[in-house]
Amino acid sequence: NYADSTIVTGSNPLSSWKDGAAKQRILAYFKAATDSTNAGYVPVDKRLLVTDNDGTLWPEQPFPFQLIFTLDFIRANAATHPEWKNIPVVKAIVANDKAGLMKAGERGLMQAMFLAHSGMTTDQFDASVRQWIDTARDARFHKRYTELVYQPMLELLELAKKHRFRVFVVSGGGADFMRVWAPQAYGIPASQVIGSYNAVKYEVKDGKPVLTKLPENILPDDKQNKPVAIRQFIGQQPVICLGNSDGDQAMMQYTSANKYPSLCLIVKHTDSTREYQYDVHTLSGHLETALKEAAQKNWLVVDMQKDFAKVFAWE
Amino acid sequence: NYADSTIVTGSNPLSSWKDGAAKQRILAYFKAATDSTNAGYVPVDKRLLVTDNDGTLWPEQPFPFQLIFTLDFIRANAATHPEWKNIPVVKAIVANDKAGLMKAGERGLMQAMFLAHSGMTTDQFDASVRQWIDTARDARFHKRYTELVYQPMLELLELAKKHRFRVFVVSGGGADFMRVWAPQAYGIPASQVIGSYNAVKYEVKDGKPVLTKLPENILPDDKQNKPVAIRQFIGQQPVICLGNSDGDQAMMQYTSANKYPSLCLIVKHTDSTREYQYDVHTLSGHLETALKEAAQKNWLVVDMQKDFAKVFAWE
Ligand SMILES: [Ca+2]
Ligand SMILES: [Ca+2]
Repeated sequence: NYADSTIVTGSNPLSSWKDGAAKQRILAYFKAATDSTNAGYVPVDKRLLVTDNDGTLWPEQPFPFQLIFTLDFIRANAATHPEWKNIPVVKAIVANDKAGLMKAGERGLMQAMFLAHSGMTTDQFDASVRQWIDTARDARFHKRYTELVYQPMLELLELAKKHRFRVFVVSGGGADFMRVWAPQAYGIPASQVIGSYNAVKYEVKDGKPVLTKLPENILPDDKQNKPVAIRQFIGQQPVICLGNSDGDQAMMQYTSANKYPSLCLIVKHTDSTREYQYDVHTLSGHLETALKEAAQKNWLVVDMQKDFAKVFAWE
Repeated sequence: NYADSTIVTGSNPLSSWKDGAAKQRILAYFKAATDSTNAGYVPVDKRLLVTDNDGTLWPEQPFPFQLIFTLDFIRANAATHPEWKNIPVVKAIVANDKAGLMKAGERGLMQAMFLAHSGMTTDQFDASVRQWIDTARDARFHKRYTELVYQPMLELLELAKKHRFRVFVVSGGGADFMRVWAPQAYGIPASQVIGSYNAVKYEVKDGKPVLTKLPENILPDDKQNKPVAIRQFIGQQPVICLGNSDGDQAMMQYTSANKYPSLCLIVKHTDSTREYQYDVHTLSGHLETALKEAAQKNWLVVDMQKDFAKVFAWE
């Protein structure tokens, strides 16, 4: 296979990975997948990689970053939205009232999400995310959120692209939220960023086409819905799947049932010093049943502490 | 722009188009769009082409081909489905009873569509479409349906790809139906074929992941829903839009509102000898209001009789 044999990956393709079993297995997979004489060969048009985002490509602690965007948006805009004044969750957010937030619960947070993600045009929403992603900083690391992308995972995506894999993000996060920054952060077009969706309405106002975001969730892209979204948006079974939680288990099952050799990889958060350590006690990223299936099916479990030489590019 | 200046399109890129205003305008658009010194320049990452399918890339007479697939499927499978026996539309289809079909009406046809498009796994459905597309022949032309793709439009898609445009089909037809044959016919991955969707259910049966098609329409991808689908599936405003009916008017409005120079093209069916002649009196492809807007907004109206030197490759 001439095209494949000319793949150039540089002298040290996964330089932020420690030498060890995980790195070796990843390199071996790509070597076999692109060698037409190997039993592990995967034809070019079947080379599809899907990856989760929160906790797989960037952190999700203390909360998923999209929730932090939501809280920041509510605080920044409450003054100009008198109609929000008596909404309990808004009051709690503006007052930074933790007990009030707990009381508002998941329904309250969902309501806050809708306030930050609907009732505006898609252009207005995109601008609001752009402004936030360009300026907001993580409280612990004092970095912009896009600077918190895991360097080893970025190298893995680049290696996959060099081996002619198409890369799709398949995340529980909002598609519209991610599409503002993910194309640049991950080097893929917006169409390859799949997430949860709100309904959108099309109208012509004063002769101008306008798309307005509605407070109506169409596809919560998690668990069983991940393989459903893969079918709906990509129309093809993946051979590589990257994830970090039980929410990714269904798409890993779907991937590992591929008739071509597959690689399923779970990022395990084991490093409280450089990042975070968690598995079952967490708001986001519960990891339990997927680990059991990983053991049965020989999915690759990556231990961030042991396998990552670097977590972030700026370390 | 070095990358653009090396574009090679062959000596006669639109050879199945007659020399004339339409062909000249298309060629001029691509020349300007890829010349960074030209006011018509479009940056590479903004080069997005969306195209309708039925009546734009292949015929839709006497009925849309997916409906013919449905009728063929019902006839071929009625014997093994005793539970269909008393369904009026099935009876009418099996008996080839035109009056009964008329009586069943749109609701009956929708019911027939669901019988042919749900209650089976995605693998089973894909196989049934594959089998049909490989064997069924059009009653008038005695050709396989994929041999009825309009040669001039195929050349236009190829020219766009050579100029580094990404090509997406955005059709009212079923996404799952098209994705079986469109990737090969149009040279694009399944993920770039967007259409109407049924809901899909994910389960693990006997340890095997299974996706089952459900009789529930999620997105009828027509009219206002076309720009909505473009936002949801592509996340980017197109600069080229190809269509043939009022169902494409909204996505043409959306395209022509792009801040970059756009090209909207309407295929007008004017050739009863080589193909079909219709505009307002048709089951599929009603063209009326889009023509009015085309005149106001200088969208390119292509007259199949005058502008196509060839309609089909085999002529
Ligand atoms: Ca995750
Ligand atoms: Ca059409």
